[in-house]
Amino acid sequence: MYTPDHFRETDPAEIAALVDRHPFAILVAQTSEGLVANHLPLLKEGEALVGHIALANDLHRAVAEGGEVLVIFRGEDSYVSPNWYPTKAETHKAVPTWNYQVVHMHGRISFDHGRKAKLAAVGKLTKRHEAALNGAGGWRVADAPAEYLETMLGSIVAFRIDVDRVLAKSKLSQNRSDADFDAVAGQMSKTGKARLAARMAELRKGR
Amino acid sequence: MYTPDHFRETDPAEIAALVDRHPFAILVAQTSEGLVANHLPLLKEGEALVGHIALANDLHRAVAEGGEVLVIFRGEDSYVSPNWYPTKAETHKAVPTWNYQVVHMHGRISFDHGRKAKLAAVGKLTKRHEAALNGAGGWRVADAPAEYLETMLGSIVAFRIDVDRVLAKSKLSQNRSDADFDAVAGQMSKTGKARLAARMAELRKGR
Repeated sequence: MYTPDHFRETDPAEIAALVDRHPFAILVAQTSEGLVANHLPLLKEGEALVGHIALANDLHRAVAEGGEVLVIFRGEDSYVSPNWYPTKAETHKAVPTWNYQVVHMHGRISFDHGRKAKLAAVGKLTKRHEAALNGAGGWRVADAPAEYLETMLGSIVAFRIDVDRVLAKSKLSQNRSDADFDAVAGQMSKTGKARLAARMAELRKGR
Repeated sequence: MYTPDHFRETDPAEIAALVDRHPFAILVAQTSEGLVANHLPLLKEGEALVGHIALANDLHRAVAEGGEVLVIFRGEDSYVSPNWYPTKAETHKAVPTWNYQVVHMHGRISFDHGRKAKLAAVGKLTKRHEAALNGAGGWRVADAPAEYLETMLGSIVAFRIDVDRVLAKSKLSQNRSDADFDAVAGQMSKTGKARLAARMAELRKGR
């Protein structure tokens, strides 16, 4: 990903928050059938990512054990109009752009057909998302009938991605003047891009 | 992308709408440096996609002329809790899942350093996004001073992707009973996933 220094996101807390807030990732791999992408929730566990796919999904056959993959976690994005910049009226030196936040993780994937790994992946993902949505009343894997659960576990494959490299980008008008930056931040709030607005407010302190 | 038949999106109007509503795409390529993804607005033009990247972006050096790329346009997504299904109370046969809509376009990319192609790409993208945001009062490329515009054009590369293959997915609980489907659709409306709710309302008619 093209990432000029001023757009590089280097704050580990912000990167972790992006992954946590946008867990529905894109898992990309190069296979003999060409480029393949799958969309699925992933969980960060130490320096690895954990998830599962359907057994019917060819990915676990098309990618070699330890094969390279790219995982994308994407936050909010917004078109940015030159009309928003106060400096535009003076200099007219402005062009449209797009602001966004994204985290790329490069790593090596390994699949696991074992019951233990599959139950762990399902259990952790369920716990994470049910807790966020339903709190203490959340659905639990143990709520499913034992026989049904075994059938479901039999139809998936767990995987783990050992992350080698993380590249994150917060493209948030860092290259504009304070006046332009503040105007864009205001538009982000106004148009419901709460996370972009919040990050811009944080970045503003360091300008 | 793993796409069981019941989740395959085959409606050309829906696919076109997804691309139009979620133009901030992900352009993925396999390069000598590994998998690379860039995030940028793309415009559908007949059977091709049109866009531009920074001249400083290595992509136009790392991908051969006519090289294969994957473009992802992703719509809304939502976690789906088993607790939402009315049938859960009876059978308990339910597990968490994720609903979403996405369009994948596979094609061959070619770059163009000519002023004409670059101005066309910038002009069309600007027109599209300014019209959506600012209507008749939208910013126009001609609003920029001529010298500044030439400098900006000098710092980008236009590209075109000839699309060979489109794969679209609307994963919207089509595999659940009517009662469960309706309950999920209701949750989509309630949680602000308006596009998923709208598509589910359309799919409901055909059940």
